[in-house]
Amino acid sequence: MRIVYVNGDYLPETEAKVSIFDRGFLMADGVYEVTSVLGGKLIDFDGHAVRLERSLRELDMKMPMAKDALLEVHRELVRLNGIDEGMIYLQITRGAPGDRDFVFPDPETTAPTVVLFTQNKPGLADSPAAKKGMRVISIEDIRWGRRDIKTVQLLYPSMGKMMAKKAGADDAWMVQDGFVTEGTSNNAYIVKGNKIITRALSNDILHGITRAAVLRFAREAQMEVEERNFTLDEAKAADEAFITSASTFVMPVVEIDGVSLGDGTPGRVAPRLREIYLEESRKAAV
Amino acid sequence: MRIVYVNGDYLPETEAKVSIFDRGFLMADGVYEVTSVLGGKLIDFDGHAVRLERSLRELDMKMPMAKDALLEVHRELVRLNGIDEGMIYLQITRGAPGDRDFVFPDPETTAPTVVLFTQNKPGLADSPAAKKGMRVISIEDIRWGRRDIKTVQLLYPSMGKMMAKKAGADDAWMVQDGFVTEGTSNNAYIVKGNKIITRALSNDILHGITRAAVLRFAREAQMEVEERNFTLDEAKAADEAFITSASTFVMPVVEIDGVSLGDGTPGRVAPRLREIYLEESRKAAV
Repeated sequence: MRIVYVNGDYLPETEAKVSIFDRGFLMADGVYEVTSVLGGKLIDFDGHAVRLERSLRELDMKMPMAKDALLEVHRELVRLNGIDEGMIYLQITRGAPGDRDFVFPDPETTAPTVVLFTQNKPGLADSPAAKKGMRVISIEDIRWGRRDIKTVQLLYPSMGKMMAKKAGADDAWMVQDGFVTEGTSNNAYIVKGNKIITRALSNDILHGITRAAVLRFAREAQMEVEERNFTLDEAKAADEAFITSASTFVMPVVEIDGVSLGDGTPGRVAPRLREIYLEESRKAAV
Repeated sequence: MRIVYVNGDYLPETEAKVSIFDRGFLMADGVYEVTSVLGGKLIDFDGHAVRLERSLRELDMKMPMAKDALLEVHRELVRLNGIDEGMIYLQITRGAPGDRDFVFPDPETTAPTVVLFTQNKPGLADSPAAKKGMRVISIEDIRWGRRDIKTVQLLYPSMGKMMAKKAGADDAWMVQDGFVTEGTSNNAYIVKGNKIITRALSNDILHGITRAAVLRFAREAQMEVEERNFTLDEAKAADEAFITSASTFVMPVVEIDGVSLGDGTPGRVAPRLREIYLEESRKAAV
């Protein structure tokens, strides 16, 4: 049975519970991170820790423990659950003040809730989906205005994934004012004439840790990168497209709203970036 | 100690827990209702039950029990906790499928999570705040696009309440494209020349149960009601203003962004509507 972490304790998953008064449960007052594990080591841990601290700060919360201590909890969970390839999920909420109130509880008397668990995914790096590519549909982006904060307000992304599933696709790209923002749990890119185009960072999208690394690797490999808004029509006319996220790394997109990109196969840029990303990330894993 | 309800059990509040894999905790995949109690009886229970069913339906979820059974749970909690005046909070989530996945779990194998608890508020009806009136600030409305579904995605309303508190005010009114949408947990109204003006129902605002009742009572009392968008400037120039919600009933607003309305006291319409609402609601309570 999986061992998870809840507020200092390592517990069997069936015993892992939080109070019904936890603000994560009652009002989505919490943030999260997902860190991938390859070869039993953590990918981009520093990037996730830095973003976590930023998300917390934006919500007037503090890191519940030092980065080193957080790293140790991650490593202990990898060890206890024998994870070679998979993910570690981390969630921090404003805690359980004992009653429901829109006003934030005093952090001196209400401790944050800290939950971590592993998701074992053998074959994560050598994914068949990466060779085949994904099909996406477009949906309107109706999420709140602070998507740069990685909160647990994931209902609409979850609904978007279901809309994609019902349409026989793998995921949804969200569109606002005619421009693609991002996927339901990933950043979105198109490639046109060897140029990689992706939306610039703002409050409209998640500041992807994998995005930052992939763009750095792309530039180091002398690929041209343009950070700007792109329309859905531009995406459908692109040579290729792809997504990035901590758990999918780089994943080609071969179809948007039923329109095949290029010859309908993953193309050249996305598979190459996936290769570079996996190679470099494994080297830097901790 | 308060007795709460969790998935069929009546438990002391300290033992009331949900799995860390509950989708309410991990992705805000849940809806809620708050029903007031006056004289030990439930106010507008039917309205809340109907809206609950609608919220669930919009998220492809079903009522976890018949309305009568739900009423019995509410009544049992009132009895067990000796509530004369207060609220009953109800939350339903898509349950705990045992792992985290954006795809909805199969409802045949994953039962919804049903949580109810009381909040004892002696003096709820005879509130001193209602005699004094509230001061509100305005903030931008950056919530998601389906505010008609009463989901637990309450982080921004909670942040809004904190912004109000920091500004020395009681609550915040949210503004979108120049027009007031609603308060952080209530519907917003202004009164100009004896006309009651409030935003019409749409996906932009909560379909308040108290709102529906108050507008009905107002029309029955031959008051003029206009359902349309109003600007923040129009609100600041209004004769009076007020909010409605299940837990505040009708509450006068005497100041918006530091601007006093009328003579800075509750005015005539809001106190009268509060009186009518409380009287009629007590009569119809179950």
